[in-house]
Amino acid sequence: MVEPKHIASKDNRRIKELKKLQLKKYRKKQGLFLIEGAHLVEEAIRHDQEVHTLIALEDYDYSPYVTEGMEVITVTPGVMKLLSSLETPPGIMAAVSYRKPQPDGRHVLLLDGIQDPGNLGTLLRTADAFGFDRVILSPDTVDPFSDKVLRSAQGSTFHIEITVADALQSVREFDGRVLGTSLDGAAFLEQMELPEGPVMVVLGNEGRGVSEEVLSNVDVKMKIDMPGGSESLNVAIAGGIIMHHFRA
Amino acid sequence: MVEPKHIASKDNRRIKELKKLQLKKYRKKQGLFLIEGAHLVEEAIRHDQEVHTLIALEDYDYSPYVTEGMEVITVTPGVMKLLSSLETPPGIMAAVSYRKPQPDGRHVLLLDGIQDPGNLGTLLRTADAFGFDRVILSPDTVDPFSDKVLRSAQGSTFHIEITVADALQSVREFDGRVLGTSLDGAAFLEQMELPEGPVMVVLGNEGRGVSEEVLSNVDVKMKIDMPGGSESLNVAIAGGIIMHHFRA
Repeated sequence: MVEPKHIASKDNRRIKELKKLQLKKYRKKQGLFLIEGAHLVEEAIRHDQEVHTLIALEDYDYSPYVTEGMEVITVTPGVMKLLSSLETPPGIMAAVSYRKPQPDGRHVLLLDGIQDPGNLGTLLRTADAFGFDRVILSPDTVDPFSDKVLRSAQGSTFHIEITVADALQSVREFDGRVLGTSLDGAAFLEQMELPEGPVMVVLGNEGRGVSEEVLSNVDVKMKIDMPGGSESLNVAIAGGIIMHHFRA
Repeated sequence: MVEPKHIASKDNRRIKELKKLQLKKYRKKQGLFLIEGAHLVEEAIRHDQEVHTLIALEDYDYSPYVTEGMEVITVTPGVMKLLSSLETPPGIMAAVSYRKPQPDGRHVLLLDGIQDPGNLGTLLRTADAFGFDRVILSPDTVDPFSDKVLRSAQGSTFHIEITVADALQSVREFDGRVLGTSLDGAAFLEQMELPEGPVMVVLGNEGRGVSEEVLSNVDVKMKIDMPGGSESLNVAIAGGIIMHHFRA
């Protein structure tokens, strides 16, 4: 049996260590990130992630989530509020180490400089829905293990392989068809058929789109048919339509 | 020529009146809403919205936007910060009265209880992109004239007809085919053809989806094919895929 440790003080050294995980720098250093709420904790366990520390309110029934070797801390509402990024803190949180699943890698999403956490989280959730099980992020993309991204990804983070790698190199080395989005693209998505072999979809930054350098290395520049009044689509919407078209 | 009025005090009565427009209650009362930044001001003017008041920093060249009868106020950075909802306030804002465009109404989007401002704004932008020029919001939907919704809609607010109306009644009275989303839908979107006549797409609340009452009154319950691991899609992503499929 795992014996929980109770901590009531915000000044406790262990609590301070855990709170640091709200910052990317310390997430990288400790190799851990925080997840909030029962749904994400369940998803993490279900998808074989390494749950290092379970943090729960005293009266919260955390027993279904406990396994041997896990650190379990019960805390006061005040300490929970300190560790949580939410207005209304959850009853349970965890510090988790990311264990990459093994993708088949036939459907790859490359994100070149996405900045908005909500967009990234939604793109991860959507990639998961349509069988894009490998997602490559350029180094200037927002951190996938920040609270907002984890929240909008709704657990898909644990189903897909997320890697940070140079965008240009990833495009050049990909053994399959690379499709980049461009408003002045030559091909309409609607007229494209699913390639026989592996496919990589490249989406770019919210403001500038896919960088010129990357775009000049893709196999096809494509665009979405927009008969209406907007000049462009939100990047997550464009990604949703494209990944749906090329779904596994 | 319109003579600008300069206001340097946050306690000025007119400034206090304008600041109240940050709240839905006063937007409704005054029939006005605030837009921030040159892009939205330009879009409002381009799409024939009634720009009542222009608010600009003293050194900002607001002259391209001025027309006869408009109230023009120049303000200090401190006053601008008070009126703006942004961390970094813009150089120009405006108080605008919504003038509905005339849609042909053959592509209608009905939103039943969307709560997230980013989702609503993105859905308005996407509706505009795919020729859904009439959008009906159930009364419990987030206010389309709040700063966050206006920002993510990126000006599409002014290209489409936005109305607040009872969802059930709108579905019942619609003279055309009504398609509602449901995870246990009977029909796959991918196998559906564009109906001959007018079409209405119904999307629901982020948590509970389209309400039972509304769903039992649609012509077709449809779902999106998701071969991957997610159980569901973000509502704006689902809406994007569906509106793209049925685009004008």
